Amino acid sequence: MKFFIETKGLSDFVNITEKVKEQIENSNIENGAVLIFVLGTTAAITIMEDESGVFADLKDILEKIAPEKGDYKHHLTGIDNNGAAHIKSALLKPDILIPLEKGKLCLGTWQQIILIDFDEKPRTREVLIKVLKTE
Amino acid sequence: MKFFIETKGLSDFVNITEKVKEQIENSNIENGAVLIFVLGTTAAITIMEDESGVFADLKDILEKIAPEKGDYKHHLTGIDNNGAAHIKSALLKPDILIPLEKGKLCLGTWQQIILIDFDEKPRTREVLIKVLKTE
Amino acid sequence: MKFFIETKGLSDFVNITEKVKEQIENSNIENGAVLIFVLGTTAAITIMEDESGVFADLKDILEKIAPEKGDYKHHLTGIDNNGAAHIKSALLKPDILIPLEKGKLCLGTWQQIILIDFDEKPRTREVLIKVLKTE
Repeated sequence: MKFFIETKGLSDFVNITEKVKEQIENSNIENGAVLIFVLGTTAAITIMEDESGVFADLKDILEKIAPEKGDYKHHLTGIDNNGAAHIKSALLKPDILIPLEKGKLCLGTWQQIILIDFDEKPRTREVLIKVLKTE
Repeated sequence: MKFFIETKGLSDFVNITEKVKEQIENSNIENGAVLIFVLGTTAAITIMEDESGVFADLKDILEKIAPEKGDYKHHLTGIDNNGAAHIKSALLKPDILIPLEKGKLCLGTWQQIILIDFDEKPRTREVLIKVLKTE
Repeated sequence: MKFFIETKGLSDFVNITEKVKEQIENSNIENGAVLIFVLGTTAAITIMEDESGVFADLKDILEKIAPEKGDYKHHLTGIDNNGAAHIKSALLKPDILIPLEKGKLCLGTWQQIILIDFDEKPRTREVLIKVLKTE
Protein backbone atom coordinates (compact mmCIF):
# COMPACT_ATOMS: atom_id res chain seq x y z
CA MET A 1 0.00 0.00 0.00
CA LYS A 2 1.18 3.49 -0.72
CA PHE A 3 0.08 7.01 -1.55
CA PHE A 4 1.62 10.16 -2.97
CA ILE A 5 1.46 13.61 -1.45
CA GLU A 6 2.42 17.05 -2.73
CA THR A 7 4.56 19.12 -0.36
CA LYS A 8 5.88 22.67 -0.43
CA GLY A 9 9.32 21.98 1.06
CA LEU A 10 11.21 24.24 3.52
CA SER A 11 9.79 22.41 6.54
CA ASP A 12 6.30 21.83 5.28
CA PHE A 13 4.28 19.96 7.93
CA VAL A 14 1.58 17.74 6.40
CA ASN A 15 -0.93 15.76 8.45
CA ILE A 16 -1.19 12.38 6.71
CA THR A 17 -3.32 10.62 9.34
CA GLU A 18 -6.47 10.42 7.21
CA LYS A 19 -4.52 9.20 4.17
CA VAL A 20 -3.07 6.39 6.30
CA LYS A 21 -6.50 5.47 7.65
CA GLU A 22 -7.91 5.25 4.10
CA GLN A 23 -5.13 2.86 3.14
CA ILE A 24 -5.52 0.48 6.07
CA GLU A 25 -9.26 0.15 5.53
CA ASN A 26 -8.34 -2.22 2.72
CA SER A 27 -6.29 -4.47 4.99
CA ASN A 28 -7.76 -7.61 6.49
CA ILE A 29 -5.44 -7.43 9.48
CA GLU A 30 -7.30 -6.55 12.65
CA ASN A 31 -4.54 -6.67 15.23
CA GLY A 32 -0.89 -5.69 14.84
CA ALA A 33 0.91 -2.51 13.87
CA VAL A 34 1.14 -0.11 10.94
CA LEU A 35 4.47 1.05 9.52
CA ILE A 36 4.46 4.41 7.76
CA PHE A 37 7.65 5.15 5.80
CA VAL A 38 8.50 8.09 3.54
CA LEU A 39 10.92 7.63 0.65
CA GLY A 40 13.65 10.27 0.42
CA THR A 41 16.56 11.62 2.47
CA THR A 42 15.15 15.11 3.04
CA ALA A 43 11.84 14.27 4.69
CA ALA A 44 10.76 12.57 7.93
CA ILE A 45 7.71 11.29 9.78
CA THR A 46 6.84 11.90 13.41
CA ILE A 47 3.81 12.05 15.67
CA MET A 48 2.64 15.32 17.16
CA GLU A 49 -0.40 17.51 17.68
CA ASP A 50 -1.80 19.14 14.53
CA GLU A 51 -1.54 22.73 15.80
CA SER A 52 0.08 25.52 13.77
CA GLY A 53 1.91 26.89 16.82
CA VAL A 54 3.61 23.56 17.58
CA PHE A 55 4.57 23.20 13.91
CA ALA A 56 6.14 26.69 13.93
CA ASP A 57 7.94 25.97 17.23
CA LEU A 58 9.46 22.73 15.94
CA LYS A 59 10.47 24.44 12.70
CA ASP A 60 12.20 27.21 14.71
CA ILE A 61 14.06 24.75 16.93
CA LEU A 62 15.21 22.59 14.02
CA GLU A 63 16.36 25.80 12.29
CA LYS A 64 18.57 26.52 15.33
CA ILE A 65 19.97 22.98 15.21
CA ALA A 66 20.62 23.01 11.45
CA PRO A 67 20.12 26.47 9.87
CA GLU A 68 18.76 26.49 6.32
CA LYS A 69 21.43 29.01 5.24
CA GLY A 70 24.31 27.30 7.04
CA ASP A 71 27.56 26.11 5.47
CA TYR A 72 27.34 22.39 4.83
CA LYS A 73 30.04 20.15 3.44
CA HIS A 74 27.29 18.44 1.45
CA HIS A 75 27.05 21.60 -0.70
CA LEU A 76 30.63 21.04 -1.90
CA THR A 77 29.28 18.23 -4.09
CA GLY A 78 27.83 21.05 -6.21
CA ILE A 79 24.59 19.16 -6.75
CA ASP A 80 22.21 20.90 -4.36
CA ASN A 81 22.00 23.18 -1.34
CA ASN A 82 19.77 21.12 0.91
CA GLY A 83 22.35 20.15 3.56
CA ALA A 84 20.10 21.30 6.39
CA ALA A 85 17.30 19.10 5.07
CA HIS A 86 19.52 16.00 5.11
CA ILE A 87 20.45 16.63 8.75
CA LYS A 88 16.87 17.11 9.93
CA SER A 89 15.73 14.02 8.03
CA ALA A 90 18.50 11.86 9.54
CA LEU A 91 17.70 13.11 13.06
CA LEU A 92 13.94 12.50 12.82
CA LYS A 93 14.03 9.42 10.55
CA PRO A 94 11.52 8.35 7.87
CA ASP A 95 9.66 5.64 9.84
CA ILE A 96 6.97 5.41 12.49
CA LEU A 97 5.18 2.31 13.82
CA ILE A 98 1.71 2.59 15.33
CA PRO A 99 -0.34 -0.10 17.11
CA LEU A 100 -3.44 -1.42 15.33
CA GLU A 101 -6.49 -2.81 17.14
CA LYS A 102 -9.78 -3.97 15.62
CA GLY A 103 -8.51 -2.60 12.32
CA LYS A 104 -7.99 0.90 13.70
CA LEU A 105 -4.87 2.95 14.49
CA CYS A 106 -4.27 3.35 18.24
CA LEU A 107 -3.45 7.03 18.65
CA GLY A 108 -3.90 9.30 21.66
CA THR A 109 -6.42 12.15 21.49
CA TRP A 110 -3.94 14.65 20.02
CA GLN A 111 -1.54 12.30 18.26
CA GLN A 112 -1.46 12.83 14.51
CA ILE A 113 0.93 11.41 11.91
CA ILE A 114 2.92 14.31 10.49
CA LEU A 115 5.16 14.17 7.43
CA ILE A 116 7.71 16.99 7.38
CA ASP A 117 9.31 17.89 4.10
CA PHE A 118 12.59 19.69 4.74
CA ASP A 119 13.71 19.94 1.13
CA GLU A 120 14.46 23.32 -0.43
CA LYS A 121 11.75 22.93 -3.07
CA PRO A 122 8.27 21.42 -3.52
CA ARG A 123 8.25 17.64 -3.91
CA THR A 124 5.90 14.78 -4.65
CA ARG A 125 6.47 12.34 -1.79
CA GLU A 126 5.79 8.62 -1.86
CA VAL A 127 4.64 7.16 1.45
CA LEU A 128 4.64 3.38 1.97
CA ILE A 129 2.36 1.56 4.41
CA LYS A 130 2.76 -1.95 5.79
CA VAL A 131 0.27 -3.57 8.13
CA LEU A 132 2.12 -6.09 10.31
CA LYS A 133 0.55 -9.05 12.08
CA THR A 134 0.36 -10.16 15.63
CA GLU A 135 -1.35 -13.45 16.37
CA MET B 1 -1.63 -5.56 25.67
CA LYS B 2 -1.10 -2.40 27.63
CA PHE B 3 -0.22 -0.97 31.01
CA PHE B 4 -0.52 2.33 32.82
CA ILE B 5 2.25 4.18 34.60
CA GLU B 6 2.30 7.21 36.88
CA THR B 7 4.83 9.89 35.97
CA LYS B 8 5.94 13.12 37.59
CA GLY B 9 6.36 15.19 34.41
CA LEU B 10 9.11 17.78 33.76
CA SER B 11 11.36 15.21 32.06
CA ASP B 12 10.66 12.28 34.33
CA PHE B 13 12.67 9.25 33.14
CA VAL B 14 10.93 5.95 33.92
CA ASN B 15 12.45 2.55 33.22
CA ILE B 16 9.58 0.45 31.84
CA THR B 17 11.63 -2.61 30.81
CA GLU B 18 10.24 -4.91 33.50
CA LYS B 19 6.68 -3.82 32.80
CA VAL B 20 7.15 -4.67 29.12
CA LYS B 21 8.65 -8.07 29.99
CA GLU B 22 5.65 -8.89 32.21
CA GLN B 23 3.30 -8.10 29.34
CA ILE B 24 5.03 -10.21 26.72
CA GLU B 25 5.13 -13.26 28.98
CA ASN B 26 1.49 -13.70 28.01
CA SER B 27 2.23 -13.77 24.31
CA ASN B 28 2.59 -17.03 22.41
CA ILE B 29 4.91 -15.46 19.86
CA GLU B 30 8.46 -16.71 20.22
CA ASN B 31 10.19 -14.95 17.35
CA GLY B 32 9.55 -11.45 16.00
CA ALA B 33 9.60 -7.98 17.48
CA VAL B 34 7.90 -5.98 20.20
CA LEU B 35 6.46 -2.52 19.60
CA ILE B 36 6.23 -0.24 22.63
CA PHE B 37 4.16 2.91 22.05
CA VAL B 38 3.15 5.66 24.48
CA LEU B 39 -0.08 7.57 23.97
CA GLY B 40 0.24 11.35 24.20
CA THR B 41 2.07 14.22 22.49
CA THR B 42 4.26 15.23 25.44
CA ALA B 43 6.04 11.95 26.16
CA ALA B 44 8.45 9.69 24.26
CA ILE B 45 10.17 6.32 24.45
CA THR B 46 13.84 5.62 23.82
CA ILE B 47 16.52 3.10 24.75
CA MET B 48 19.39 4.05 27.04
CA GLU B 49 21.31 2.99 30.11
CA ASP B 50 19.42 3.27 33.40
CA GLU B 51 21.94 5.56 35.11
CA SER B 52 20.94 8.77 36.88
CA GLY B 53 23.88 10.70 35.40
CA VAL B 54 22.89 9.87 31.82
CA PHE B 55 19.28 10.80 32.57
CA ALA B 56 20.41 14.19 33.97
CA ASP B 57 22.72 14.76 30.98
CA LEU B 58 19.97 14.08 28.44
CA LYS B 59 17.56 16.28 30.38
CA ASP B 60 20.15 19.12 30.34
CA ILE B 61 20.78 18.79 26.61
CA LEU B 62 17.10 18.67 25.72
CA GLU B 63 16.62 21.74 27.94
CA LYS B 64 19.20 23.57 25.78
CA ILE B 65 17.40 22.47 22.60
CA ALA B 66 13.93 23.41 23.86
CA PRO B 67 14.00 25.35 27.16
CA GLU B 68 11.10 24.72 29.51
CA LYS B 69 10.62 28.47 30.06
CA GLY B 70 10.99 29.45 26.39
CA ASP B 71 8.49 31.41 24.33
CA TYR B 72 6.47 29.00 22.23
CA LYS B 73 3.82 29.86 19.69
CA HIS B 74 1.86 26.89 21.05
CA HIS B 75 1.26 28.91 24.24
CA LEU B 76 -0.72 31.46 22.23
CA THR B 77 -3.55 28.92 22.09
CA GLY B 78 -4.05 29.81 25.78
CA ILE B 79 -4.68 26.19 26.69
CA ASP B 80 -1.39 25.15 28.26
CA ASN B 81 2.28 26.06 28.63
CA ASN B 82 3.89 22.80 27.62
CA GLY B 83 5.39 23.88 24.27
CA ALA B 84 8.83 22.53 25.20
CA ALA B 85 7.29 19.14 25.97
CA HIS B 86 5.64 18.94 22.53
CA ILE B 87 8.98 19.64 20.82
CA LYS B 88 10.91 17.02 22.81
CA SER B 89 8.19 14.44 22.21
CA ALA B 90 8.14 15.08 18.44
CA LEU B 91 11.95 14.84 18.26
CA LEU B 92 12.20 11.56 20.20
CA LYS B 93 8.91 9.99 19.05
CA PRO B 94 6.57 7.67 20.99
CA ASP B 95 7.60 4.33 19.44
CA ILE B 96 10.40 1.80 19.76
CA LEU B 97 10.67 -1.67 18.18
CA ILE B 98 12.81 -4.36 19.80
CA PRO B 99 13.72 -7.82 18.46
CA LEU B 100 12.18 -10.86 20.19
CA GLU B 101 13.82 -14.29 20.32
CA LYS B 102 12.63 -17.37 22.18
CA GLY B 103 9.97 -15.16 23.74
CA LYS B 104 12.52 -12.74 25.20
CA LEU B 105 13.47 -9.15 24.35
CA CYS B 106 16.86 -8.86 22.66
CA LEU B 107 18.55 -5.99 24.47
CA GLY B 108 22.24 -5.26 24.99
CA THR B 109 23.72 -5.43 28.48
CA TRP B 110 22.95 -1.80 29.30
CA GLN B 111 19.96 -1.19 27.04
CA GLN B 112 16.79 -0.37 28.93
CA ILE B 113 13.43 0.89 27.67
CA ILE B 114 12.96 4.39 29.04
CA LEU B 115 9.73 6.39 28.92
CA ILE B 116 10.33 10.13 29.31
CA ASP B 117 7.44 12.30 30.37
CA PHE B 118 8.11 15.89 29.32
CA ASP B 119 4.76 17.32 30.36
CA GLU B 120 4.57 20.16 32.85
CA LYS B 121 2.59 18.13 35.36
CA PRO B 122 2.24 14.54 36.63
CA ARG B 123 0.36 12.24 34.26
CA THR B 124 -0.99 8.72 34.08
CA ARG B 125 0.48 7.32 30.86
CA GLU B 126 -0.95 4.50 28.79
CA VAL B 127 1.66 2.32 27.08
CA LEU B 128 0.59 -0.08 24.30
CA ILE B 129 2.49 -3.26 23.43
CA LYS B 130 2.23 -5.26 20.22
CA VAL B 131 4.16 -8.48 19.61
CA LEU B 132 4.74 -8.86 15.87
CA LYS B 133 5.43 -12.11 14.04
CA THR B 134 8.20 -13.35 11.90
CA GLU B 135 7.88 -16.79 10.38
CA MET C 1 19.45 -13.19 11.86
CA LYS C 2 22.36 -11.04 12.84
CA PHE C 3 25.80 -9.85 11.82
CA PHE C 4 28.80 -8.24 13.44
CA ILE C 5 30.60 -5.15 12.25
CA GLU C 6 33.86 -3.47 13.27
CA THR C 7 33.63 0.27 13.95
CA LYS C 8 36.18 2.96 14.78
CA GLY C 9 34.07 4.92 17.28
CA LEU C 10 34.01 8.74 17.65
CA SER C 11 31.03 9.06 15.29
CA ASP C 12 32.01 6.44 12.76
CA PHE C 13 29.34 6.27 10.03
CA VAL C 14 29.05 2.78 8.52
CA ASN C 15 26.77 1.92 5.62
CA ILE C 16 25.23 -1.45 6.51
CA THR C 17 22.69 -1.64 3.68
CA GLU C 18 24.44 -4.46 1.79
CA LYS C 19 24.93 -6.47 4.98
CA VAL C 20 21.20 -6.21 5.70
CA LYS C 21 20.32 -7.25 2.14
CA GLU C 22 22.55 -10.34 2.43
CA GLN C 23 20.76 -11.37 5.60
CA ILE C 24 17.23 -11.03 4.28
CA GLU C 25 17.99 -13.08 1.18
CA ASN C 26 17.65 -16.08 3.49
CA SER C 27 14.18 -15.11 4.61
CA ASN C 28 11.10 -16.65 3.00
CA ILE C 29 9.01 -13.61 3.77
CA GLU C 30 8.12 -11.66 0.64
CA ASN C 31 5.96 -8.91 2.02
CA GLY C 32 6.27 -7.08 5.33
CA ALA C 33 8.98 -5.03 7.01
CA VAL C 34 12.56 -5.42 8.21
CA LEU C 35 13.68 -4.33 11.67
CA ILE C 36 17.34 -3.43 12.04
CA PHE C 37 18.49 -3.02 15.66
CA VAL C 38 21.97 -2.38 17.06
CA LEU C 39 22.89 -3.64 20.52
CA GLY C 40 24.56 -1.06 22.76
CA THR C 41 23.82 2.34 24.33
CA THR C 42 26.47 4.32 22.43
CA ALA C 43 25.45 3.59 18.83
CA ALA C 44 22.38 4.27 16.68
CA ILE C 45 20.86 3.49 13.31
CA THR C 46 19.30 5.97 10.90
CA ILE C 47 18.64 6.39 7.19
CA MET C 48 20.52 8.95 5.11
CA GLU C 49 22.47 9.43 1.93
CA ASP C 50 25.90 7.77 1.84
CA GLU C 51 27.87 10.94 1.13
CA SER C 52 30.95 11.96 3.13
CA GLY C 53 29.83 15.59 3.30
CA VAL C 54 26.47 14.71 4.87
CA PHE C 55 28.21 12.41 7.36
CA ALA C 56 30.61 15.24 8.35
CA ASP C 57 27.72 17.72 8.63
CA LEU C 58 25.69 15.45 10.91
CA LYS C 59 28.77 14.74 13.03
CA ASP C 60 29.38 18.51 13.40
CA ILE C 61 25.80 19.22 14.38
CA LEU C 62 25.64 16.39 16.90
CA GLU C 63 28.95 17.68 18.30
CA LYS C 64 27.27 21.06 18.90
CA ILE C 65 24.32 19.34 20.62
CA ALA C 66 26.48 17.09 22.81
CA PRO C 67 30.21 17.98 22.64
CA GLU C 68 32.62 15.07 22.94
CA LYS C 69 34.70 16.96 25.53
CA GLY C 70 31.74 18.27 27.54
CA ASP C 71 31.15 17.78 31.24
CA TYR C 72 28.70 14.94 31.75
CA LYS C 73 27.27 13.69 35.02
CA HIS C 74 27.68 10.21 33.62
CA HIS C 75 31.45 10.62 33.96
CA LEU C 76 31.05 10.89 37.73
CA THR C 77 30.45 7.14 37.79
CA GLY C 78 34.19 6.89 37.08
CA ILE C 79 33.68 4.03 34.63
CA ASP C 80 34.06 5.78 31.28
CA ASN C 81 34.04 9.14 29.53
CA ASN C 82 31.51 8.49 26.80
CA GLY C 83 28.68 10.70 28.07
CA ALA C 84 28.30 12.42 24.69
CA ALA C 85 27.92 9.04 23.00
CA HIS C 86 25.08 8.02 25.34
CA ILE C 87 23.19 11.25 24.54
CA LYS C 88 23.54 10.88 20.77
CA SER C 89 22.49 7.24 20.92
CA ALA C 90 19.38 8.02 23.00
CA LEU C 91 18.39 10.85 20.63
CA LEU C 92 18.77 8.80 17.44
CA LYS C 93 17.74 5.40 18.85
CA PRO C 94 18.99 1.93 17.86
CA ASP C 95 16.07 0.83 15.67
CA ILE C 96 14.79 1.39 12.15
CA LEU C 97 11.93 -0.37 10.32
CA ILE C 98 11.91 -0.56 6.51
CA PRO C 99 9.14 -1.86 4.23
CA LEU C 100 9.77 -5.12 2.37
CA GLU C 101 8.17 -6.00 -0.99
CA LYS C 102 8.82 -9.04 -3.17
CA GLY C 103 11.62 -9.92 -0.77
CA LYS C 104 13.41 -6.59 -1.26
CA LEU C 105 13.94 -3.54 0.96
CA CYS C 106 11.90 -0.53 -0.17
CA LEU C 107 14.34 2.36 -0.02
CA GLY C 108 14.38 5.61 -1.98
CA THR C 109 17.16 6.26 -4.50
CA TRP C 110 19.51 7.80 -1.93
CA GLN C 111 18.29 6.13 1.25
CA GLN C 112 20.94 3.96 2.88
CA ILE C 113 20.95 2.28 6.30
CA ILE C 114 23.67 3.94 8.36
CA LEU C 115 24.98 2.69 11.69
CA ILE C 116 26.70 5.43 13.67
CA ASP C 117 29.09 4.41 16.43
CA PHE C 118 29.46 7.28 18.88
CA ASP C 119 31.62 5.45 21.41
CA GLU C 120 35.03 6.80 22.36
CA LYS C 121 36.82 3.71 21.10
CA PRO C 122 36.60 1.05 18.35
CA ARG C 123 33.91 -1.55 18.94
CA THR C 124 32.58 -4.78 17.48
CA ARG C 125 28.86 -4.14 17.03
CA GLU C 126 26.14 -6.75 16.89
CA VAL C 127 23.24 -5.90 14.59
CA LEU C 128 20.00 -7.90 14.81
CA ILE C 129 17.57 -8.30 11.92
CA LYS C 130 13.93 -9.38 12.09
CA VAL C 131 11.73 -9.81 9.03
CA LEU C 132 8.11 -9.17 10.04
CA LYS C 133 5.04 -10.43 8.22
CA THR C 134 2.10 -8.80 6.65
CA GLU C 135 -0.61 -11.01 5.18
